[in-house]
Amino acid sequence: MFSIIIAAHGNLAASLMESGEMISGEAKNVYGVEFRPGENTDTLIEKYNIIINGEGLADSKILFLVDLFGGSPYNAASMLAMKNDNIDIITGVNLPIYLETKMDQNSKELEEVVSYIKEIAPSTVVSFKDLAANVEEDDFDED
Amino acid sequence: MFSIIIAAHGNLAASLMESGEMISGEAKNVYGVEFRPGENTDTLIEKYNIIINGEGLADSKILFLVDLFGGSPYNAASMLAMKNDNIDIITGVNLPIYLETKMDQNSKELEEVVSYIKEIAPSTVVSFKDLAANVEEDDFDED
Repeated sequence: MFSIIIAAHGNLAASLMESGEMISGEAKNVYGVEFRPGENTDTLIEKYNIIINGEGLADSKILFLVDLFGGSPYNAASMLAMKNDNIDIITGVNLPIYLETKMDQNSKELEEVVSYIKEIAPSTVVSFKDLAANVEEDDFDED
Repeated sequence: MFSIIIAAHGNLAASLMESGEMISGEAKNVYGVEFRPGENTDTLIEKYNIIINGEGLADSKILFLVDLFGGSPYNAASMLAMKNDNIDIITGVNLPIYLETKMDQNSKELEEVVSYIKEIAPSTVVSFKDLAANVEEDDFDED
């Protein structure tokens, strides 16, 4: 129901796609964009438009997954999103968030997935010590 | 005050380090571990121990940043953390979380940084449409 463009500093987008492939197989309608030293938001907008026009996505829904808020990959994507209601952007992509969007992209609406991602995002970041403390607490409850 | 080991499927750890370097310079006491097809938790524990022993980290604080909860990079790190109170793990690493730990690793205690990461994690994942809606609301308030 929507395409995914991952855009990030360096090689991060391609690495997320590769790691995602190790876990849940090849991605379809997922495109990666590198942001390299010396490039700027104009370079990125050009790269985004090459994908959008080259892949015939101009009239379809697109979710940008970018590395962080306020970076050039975000800023460039936001310039496209401002002019196109079919585009939304999620910042701070991590592997579980990418896996979730990849799993849902052919079965759910973009708006539904964005809403779900924001809901689950805090639960994707947990610490070992918290988890271990909870387990110990559970054990104690059972005694 | 603590070292960082990023461990993730594929090449993700090295890509996070490279992207972090583009934004805030070279990292010190940050090590990346790849998890490749055909490897398992034993392979990963061996890779972790090579870093920990080779870099003389056995008695110091270590923060593992791993890609996702329940994956082999997490499972292997949790086996070390169970036996060593100096080790904690954060799952679901994204670029802003890595940048934060990298900035704080020489000035703050591990426990303080883990607590702060969990606090800020939800705010690293935001959507363009939410941000745009807030801006429009602010504009309306001013009228």
